[in-house]
Amino acid sequence: MSSIRTTTIEFSTKGNTDIIDITGKVDEKIKESGFREGHVIIFGVGSTTGISTIEYEPGLVKNDISEFWQKIAPYEKDYRHNATWHDDNGAAHVRSTVQGSSLTVPFVNGEMTLGTWQQIIFIDFDTRPRSRQVGVQVVG
Amino acid sequence: MSSIRTTTIEFSTKGNTDIIDITGKVDEKIKESGFREGHVIIFGVGSTTGISTIEYEPGLVKNDISEFWQKIAPYEKDYRHNATWHDDNGAAHVRSTVQGSSLTVPFVNGEMTLGTWQQIIFIDFDTRPRSRQVGVQVVG
Amino acid sequence: MSSIRTTTIEFSTKGNTDIIDITGKVDEKIKESGFREGHVIIFGVGSTTGISTIEYEPGLVKNDISEFWQKIAPYEKDYRHNATWHDDNGAAHVRSTVQGSSLTVPFVNGEMTLGTWQQIIFIDFDTRPRSRQVGVQVVG
Repeated sequence: MSSIRTTTIEFSTKGNTDIIDITGKVDEKIKESGFREGHVIIFGVGSTTGISTIEYEPGLVKNDISEFWQKIAPYEKDYRHNATWHDDNGAAHVRSTVQGSSLTVPFVNGEMTLGTWQQIIFIDFDTRPRSRQVGVQVVG
Repeated sequence: MSSIRTTTIEFSTKGNTDIIDITGKVDEKIKESGFREGHVIIFGVGSTTGISTIEYEPGLVKNDISEFWQKIAPYEKDYRHNATWHDDNGAAHVRSTVQGSSLTVPFVNGEMTLGTWQQIIFIDFDTRPRSRQVGVQVVG
Repeated sequence: MSSIRTTTIEFSTKGNTDIIDITGKVDEKIKESGFREGHVIIFGVGSTTGISTIEYEPGLVKNDISEFWQKIAPYEKDYRHNATWHDDNGAAHVRSTVQGSSLTVPFVNGEMTLGTWQQIIFIDFDTRPRSRQVGVQVVG
């Protein structure tokens, strides 16, 4: 018979596809819940955010992911979103929708079933530094 | 001790990467459940569907997302799927697999923890108008 | 009042965007749980994995998905990840992060609410054959 605990983690980003490792903070929430078996739902609040997993090493985090998105959804392109709202973050919205903003990770014995080189990340696709909230709901 | 309520929402689409705002219908299901704290699982039934979030404004919804997908997985390309099945929707299948068809959103005090400009969307990538079903399971 | 059962499925892959249909094995886990209403969380362990749905037919599975990823994140590109770690699987990591490694599917009367032509897949983006684990957590 499972129970639910809803929490939030907060942090600042640099924007521009800044990738933040939130694994430790998510793990803390599981530990605080005291639940041994269950899952954690991670939800990126905002329409220019992304949630996923990655091997958190500088080559991927600082270069390869940014270059990938820059090739297929460049920040400089003329998006209709930018023209409509006199905004500059059309690419951020497109990337966010395609990336997706939710992830669910099982845990057993209080430990998430991540791979050895697999971390949970928040991606800030927006074009400026921002304060961000990520919903972390622990079910166990 | 959480409980589960499984419901379905139904609607028609125009196909061709038609993007439908389903936030209001999902919210109704949460309200009907009477649950105060929990999460809602949204699942797109069918292999040419997508589920995600977006700032639901015409520039993104009518232009930018379609142009993005048209550039990287154009409808007119010769997909093996089309040759095998004398079909024309290979692009729709590729887009659906990459986009993903499930999303989980936490709620607290009966309200989803969405950003101010963040709506839940169903994307119909298929090449013709269709009647669609989306599974909405409320856990609380 | 829902309960949780955590299980694992294991199998071998050929790597190189090998796409494995795991629908039957996930269905077995639901049947073994005895739960009638709930959802199943599928999580790909490892940072070069992907989880999604597809119409599991050879044209898409053997050709179209591979060609799509090869166009936008080619295996042969010079990724910083490869330079840093003297590795060759930078593309696999990029693809995995963008694809995503978790999926949640509702079930009712013990049957997942999949479309008729919609199967659950594991994608191995890595550049060599591997033994893989997928977490399957049944909640009902």
